[in-house]
Amino acid sequence: MTFLDMLQRAERQNASLLCVGLDPEPAKFPRHWQGDASKIFDFCAAIVDATKDLACAFKPQIAYFASQRAESVLEKLAVAARDRYPHHIWLLDAKRGDIGSTAEHYAREAYDRYQADAVTVSPYMGTDSLAPYLQYKDRGIFVLCRTPNSGGDDFQMLSTDHHPLYVEVATQAAQRWNQYQQIGLVVGATYPREIEIVRQVAPDLPLLIPGIGAQGGDLIATVRAGRNESG
Amino acid sequence: MTFLDMLQRAERQNASLLCVGLDPEPAKFPRHWQGDASKIFDFCAAIVDATKDLACAFKPQIAYFASQRAESVLEKLAVAARDRYPHHIWLLDAKRGDIGSTAEHYAREAYDRYQADAVTVSPYMGTDSLAPYLQYKDRGIFVLCRTPNSGGDDFQMLSTDHHPLYVEVATQAAQRWNQYQQIGLVVGATYPREIEIVRQVAPDLPLLIPGIGAQGGDLIATVRAGRNESG
Repeated sequence: MTFLDMLQRAERQNASLLCVGLDPEPAKFPRHWQGDASKIFDFCAAIVDATKDLACAFKPQIAYFASQRAESVLEKLAVAARDRYPHHIWLLDAKRGDIGSTAEHYAREAYDRYQADAVTVSPYMGTDSLAPYLQYKDRGIFVLCRTPNSGGDDFQMLSTDHHPLYVEVATQAAQRWNQYQQIGLVVGATYPREIEIVRQVAPDLPLLIPGIGAQGGDLIATVRAGRNESG
Repeated sequence: MTFLDMLQRAERQNASLLCVGLDPEPAKFPRHWQGDASKIFDFCAAIVDATKDLACAFKPQIAYFASQRAESVLEKLAVAARDRYPHHIWLLDAKRGDIGSTAEHYAREAYDRYQADAVTVSPYMGTDSLAPYLQYKDRGIFVLCRTPNSGGDDFQMLSTDHHPLYVEVATQAAQRWNQYQQIGLVVGATYPREIEIVRQVAPDLPLLIPGIGAQGGDLIATVRAGRNESG
């Protein structure tokens, strides 16, 4: 079973296209929780339990765990979530991007240590930065493409020979890296027009679309722009 | 004291421009070391001790520690290296690239948890992915610019409106992000001509130049292309 099959099964079984982020920001914790690593687990587990019927995927962001020396909490959370909700996708948001044996170790970190079904990756270093992840043929990779932050314009919107950089990333992803249906793209909800363009060059790739709500993206416009025949 | 001052002092005091990488690849360990996390410390500490008179900086690559559940070893190594060799730069090779509170947590990870003087960062997400690091005004950021791997061509060499993408990254780094002399650039030794071009648009930025030796970069050509008035 390919990652795309697994993702589509999770979408069907949960009747959902929603990915819920797990960003345990300690500044948002009650004061008496501060400094207690076990509360990071409780915080994330409570979100998972409360949203499981609405979501098909959960996305822990590793920076929050790393800055709090809580890697073991992330491991434990992965085991618990996989055990309790085996039909949900576990997506590690790490945005690593490196090459050779370094990228191999990042792939091990994501797929072996944290049991991720998929991981976010930065494309700046090119094809060989994807290669070690592609070796895990049943796992997914969401490549940063058109991100919803203000600085996303700085490089992603630069006109390259034929089109903006983000379109070139989407093109490479669809035509070159997706042999085993492992690849998805990160495209911000704040740019429905650009979601449509990505859909044209990468019609079959799953899209991870952050930026709805606080960042200003519109849900209806996003779904209209991003959907394809399978969801 | 700015990061650039600190780096130049380390170069003078050690009479060196060399940065030594610490990549504890377990496949290169003796068989009886396998699975013993304390050997990761010993391996790296031995390299640091053996090269301290030749180097001005050490660069641990975090992926090797993360895949081996050895973050505590990296912490301990940072404490030991800072304590024994306070005149060397401690550069965390992490190549993170994210925004907002996530990037804040990555900056905390690098600068607070691992006591790094500087960290490598990916520019794909643009200016706001640098912002949280820039808040640490006495620390450095080496931005990926022109990387020495084969896939480096995929996006970094694309012609944008005026010049290749990597030149745009170097330009933004020099003109926009370097207000407090915190910024350096990663430029591969395999491309001396492109090191010269980076030097033209970013004459004062320190360059971190991987790729000499195994990856095929030439030391003399690299120094000729990369040096400026201060080193």
